[in-house]
Amino acid sequence: MPPPPPPIHSPLSLRPHLLLLIRSRARTPLLRRRSPSRDPPLCRPRRCLSMRASAAATAQQTELGVEEAVVGFVTGKKKATEVAHAVWRSIVRKGDVVVDATCGNGNDTLALLKMVADERGQGRVYGMDIQDSAIESTSSFLKMAVDNDQQELVKLFPVCHSRMEEIVPKDTPARLVAFNLGYLPGGDKTLITVPRTTELALQAASRILSSGGLISVLVYIGHPGGRDELNVVESFASSLPADAWASCKLQMVNRPIAPVLILLNKKDLFQ
Amino acid sequence: MPPPPPPIHSPLSLRPHLLLLIRSRARTPLLRRRSPSRDPPLCRPRRCLSMRASAAATAQQTELGVEEAVVGFVTGKKKATEVAHAVWRSIVRKGDVVVDATCGNGNDTLALLKMVADERGQGRVYGMDIQDSAIESTSSFLKMAVDNDQQELVKLFPVCHSRMEEIVPKDTPARLVAFNLGYLPGGDKTLITVPRTTELALQAASRILSSGGLISVLVYIGHPGGRDELNVVESFASSLPADAWASCKLQMVNRPIAPVLILLNKKDLFQ
Repeated sequence: MPPPPPPIHSPLSLRPHLLLLIRSRARTPLLRRRSPSRDPPLCRPRRCLSMRASAAATAQQTELGVEEAVVGFVTGKKKATEVAHAVWRSIVRKGDVVVDATCGNGNDTLALLKMVADERGQGRVYGMDIQDSAIESTSSFLKMAVDNDQQELVKLFPVCHSRMEEIVPKDTPARLVAFNLGYLPGGDKTLITVPRTTELALQAASRILSSGGLISVLVYIGHPGGRDELNVVESFASSLPADAWASCKLQMVNRPIAPVLILLNKKDLFQ
Repeated sequence: MPPPPPPIHSPLSLRPHLLLLIRSRARTPLLRRRSPSRDPPLCRPRRCLSMRASAAATAQQTELGVEEAVVGFVTGKKKATEVAHAVWRSIVRKGDVVVDATCGNGNDTLALLKMVADERGQGRVYGMDIQDSAIESTSSFLKMAVDNDQQELVKLFPVCHSRMEEIVPKDTPARLVAFNLGYLPGGDKTLITVPRTTELALQAASRILSSGGLISVLVYIGHPGGRDELNVVESFASSLPADAWASCKLQMVNRPIAPVLILLNKKDLFQ
């Protein structure tokens, strides 16, 4: 396997100080961070065991097809995130470059890695999250789930997703950019992705996406600020010209706080 | 094949006089019908040829799987109606009883017939449309597409869909009730399904549906009154209790007048 390319930025430029730059709303002040005393250690024994079990389960779980996921969603048995993963698998190919714009605890990152990992080592997952604890969780999760060669295909950056163009190489358009908006599962629920930077991130994603590629946005709306963010995502999706983009929305309408899945396909006009 | 059961109502009770009962909105006055002089004959030579070709094409067309339909929809290559048909095929089985609540020109009726037609002759499609010209079109369309034995499995009634409980036998819950709301394709665009009777029809459908069954509603919104009807359907879908129903909505958000697909599954609580 050829050696992976070096990160575009020096480690210094992507140190956690960037985590402090992006907060903008009253509910999430600019410099609000969890205090160290409230931060659980990354890998306490019980959590470590739980994460190991979760990573093993995720790495080995059956991958649903689109039919099973969609019919399961329609009949209330599968979640929107399972529909998203199944659609990703239909669009992403081995060797593709993809972006996890909100790493969280690493579940999507691992799912994406399994889709792009190829024997030639060309596939890449560029992952980012504004919370350094999310990047640490994702890194630990991947270490427990896959071998070193596959870990090398993932590039993690503790940076806001609005800056993804500084991370993904310009000559490698992304086949998929995945967003999982809201708060870090298991983390501080007041630390959330926010409309202004999400809108910038969507704009950036639309620029780095390959022709035929997909922006996938799962919007959680059960927390304060969630609906504002959905409005921004819907407004962005609606504004995309129909001759160049297909923007579709899938939601449960009798579960008011169920996450909403928005899929934005940059049409391949030569197909 | 055993003989098909007789219609529940005497032919007299379902004669076209019922077509005059349901119109309620200012735009569609109670007795407004197309005048005979504007009614094209049912089967002029050119139309007949076109209908024959369409029936043959529909009867022989490749049936998309859910994956191809959904990924095609996400990438702007397939229509919502193709997603609907693919989902129906995943839920409906040979021998089922299903309802086409808005026969139109018979495309959905034929698609449903192909899903339920079985060697034992137990499958049934109960079709209805408030416009007698739609019932006539559907009947002609089926005659061109399938043999007599299969035609016998379809029971057509020129009646408003709000009265479906008078048509479907009480002891045979329906696996699927399909709505295709709006105006008759190729017909008078001012003759439309209307919110009041559509709401009554949805309530009726929810009562006759089997456990595990599906109400499928494709709402066209590009004509005057279309958005009012969508509001009624969404309101109904949202009101269904989440423990007993899964109500989901699929739509293109950057094509403002694209039809919206709403799928309502009565959960099978014993599965």
